[in-house]
Amino acid sequence: MDTRTGLPVVGMVGGGQLARMTHQAAIALGQSLRVLARTPEDGAALVAADVQYGEHTDLAALRTFAKGCDVVTFDHEQVPGEHIRALAADGVRLYPGADALRCAQDKAVMRQRLTELGAPVPRWQRIGSVDELAAFGAEVGWPVVVKAARGGYDGRGVWLLDTPDELAAVGLEPADPAVELIAEERVKLVRELAVQVARSPFGQLAVYPVVETVQRDGICVEVLAPAPALPQSRALAAQQLAIDLASALDVVGLLAVELFEVPGGGGLVVNELAMRPHNSGHWTIEGARTSQFEQHLRAVLDYPMGDTGLTAPAVVMANVLGGADGGMGIDERLHHLFATDPGAKVHLYGKQVRPGRKIGHVTVLGEDLADVRNRAARAARWLQEGR
Amino acid sequence: MDTRTGLPVVGMVGGGQLARMTHQAAIALGQSLRVLARTPEDGAALVAADVQYGEHTDLAALRTFAKGCDVVTFDHEQVPGEHIRALAADGVRLYPGADALRCAQDKAVMRQRLTELGAPVPRWQRIGSVDELAAFGAEVGWPVVVKAARGGYDGRGVWLLDTPDELAAVGLEPADPAVELIAEERVKLVRELAVQVARSPFGQLAVYPVVETVQRDGICVEVLAPAPALPQSRALAAQQLAIDLASALDVVGLLAVELFEVPGGGGLVVNELAMRPHNSGHWTIEGARTSQFEQHLRAVLDYPMGDTGLTAPAVVMANVLGGADGGMGIDERLHHLFATDPGAKVHLYGKQVRPGRKIGHVTVLGEDLADVRNRAARAARWLQEGR
Repeated sequence: MDTRTGLPVVGMVGGGQLARMTHQAAIALGQSLRVLARTPEDGAALVAADVQYGEHTDLAALRTFAKGCDVVTFDHEQVPGEHIRALAADGVRLYPGADALRCAQDKAVMRQRLTELGAPVPRWQRIGSVDELAAFGAEVGWPVVVKAARGGYDGRGVWLLDTPDELAAVGLEPADPAVELIAEERVKLVRELAVQVARSPFGQLAVYPVVETVQRDGICVEVLAPAPALPQSRALAAQQLAIDLASALDVVGLLAVELFEVPGGGGLVVNELAMRPHNSGHWTIEGARTSQFEQHLRAVLDYPMGDTGLTAPAVVMANVLGGADGGMGIDERLHHLFATDPGAKVHLYGKQVRPGRKIGHVTVLGEDLADVRNRAARAARWLQEGR
Repeated sequence: MDTRTGLPVVGMVGGGQLARMTHQAAIALGQSLRVLARTPEDGAALVAADVQYGEHTDLAALRTFAKGCDVVTFDHEQVPGEHIRALAADGVRLYPGADALRCAQDKAVMRQRLTELGAPVPRWQRIGSVDELAAFGAEVGWPVVVKAARGGYDGRGVWLLDTPDELAAVGLEPADPAVELIAEERVKLVRELAVQVARSPFGQLAVYPVVETVQRDGICVEVLAPAPALPQSRALAAQQLAIDLASALDVVGLLAVELFEVPGGGGLVVNELAMRPHNSGHWTIEGARTSQFEQHLRAVLDYPMGDTGLTAPAVVMANVLGGADGGMGIDERLHHLFATDPGAKVHLYGKQVRPGRKIGHVTVLGEDLADVRNRAARAARWLQEGR
């Protein structure tokens, strides 16, 4: 507890944009997020009052950081499970816990757990050799999706292979013990969906509306909330799936379930899990009564959950990626954007612009999805390309 | 400019809740508010990364603070005008400027300027002696409102006197050169209204919907947005008045015009002016597409203004005052409130609880004003009294 305010101290390991936006939410709740950042240039370190520096892989740094925190949570999924267990053994409250988090850290573990739980997943297999991949491909049909079990994000660590021999061509060596691989059938997908649910230690659950996520080159560029023209029965099934997984995996905090909508059958297949605020939920800052960042804090603090209802019939979030340097600075681009669309809500993460890097997002709300979507895309393009 | 982000640095003199909430808005715009606080316990100092310490009356401290700021603005109106002029002479951009700000610092100057501009004001007079007060009261009728020209807020520095002799009874001495007094007729008021307008250096204006402010013991306890049952012609007149005053007084940033609604005639009388984000605009964080804090930043940075439209038909903000200690801590009260109303949005300022002190506010939005108002009042009471 912060004795100056009588309110709890939440520590977040990692100083990226998720910590940055969680700090904004913490301020409203009377708190100040404690951040373990790597450098003073980290997005959250630029704006938070209570910052410590250290590596998330350094147990000593984590121990120092956890002192005086009421609860410790995470901006990313890269903290080693053994460190989380060691901190828990010290008596530190950490959410999500190591067991839950493993399913977001390791795709092989995640696939295994989901299979055991009877959740809908693509056919998949651990791959220890080119021969195993060849046999799997012969069974499910080529092309096959190959993923590194650990360490991938935003399309990295995922390959679409037409033949088993391409494994070597993309630089993968299944015999390397450091690189565990899984193969998955390539599902025919209608589109990608995501659903977020928050769960507290008490077990309270609060689920957000199902959204559609639009990817380009493996990176999410756009989120449409609610997912347009999604039958209510399928939306409810997706929400129920997220609720069931959060409970079964004992997640505390936010769980994002990334889904493929597929033709026929149940119509849903789980793609990925994330156990933290997630890009697919940035729209909630203005688009839901309770933002995912506030909700994550409420969940890990065991506060009752906030209202997850929409604030407008149509909400679109578009990511802003670093563009090629067009000679126009980000401040000038903001001027132009604000002149073009007084209703666009901008979130910049304080990052150096590098091509393809997520440097912010914009959210637009309104009555008509097509209009809102056009505005969001235009706003993101302005910030990205200066035109 | 912050060379790490390519975005401007706004400095705010004063580290209270207005700076705290402005920092939240700055984060979204990719910035980090620079704060001149008095102590590390100031609401904004608890949460901002870029804090300097010093008194707002210390020109040397202000000069150090202003270095590297693209623009300097204010969390309160207590910075001496001569210091603002000295900084401006140094080349510092300060908004609002000293001339504009004088009308928010000195009620006699404000009344004089408004009278010259033909704005609707109560009959008023500077009071230099008990005899002058007696003559004024004889003319306008008793009771008479007496105000200290400078330094009052939240009902302090305002007295309602039934006779001229009561001046001595409340401890006032008109001959004291440090205490300039004005007297005003007590207007028959239907209710109190407020309207906020933002103005940029370029001269762009963006006005918010007119709100009703509900006072108790001279302190605003509740704001209803939009002001219920206000005829459109009167709402437009109030907005036009705010626009005209912002332009005539050359305000840059936010101007809050506090109004009395009175029977007959034009129906509006100006009570007070504030040139900064204002308590009557806290509802805009969730209730308007652009919060007053973001709008103030946009205005002082000469960004085009944001959309001031409502996000719901009825929005109610209720202030949370420090209550008598009921044995239940603020964190426990939060738990109970969140369990009672998942849709109530809470803003706590990180302040030590003292009876009657504004320690936060809650905002509730919805379709039905009566329902929303009940929920906001109940939420504020929970945080205030723990029941």
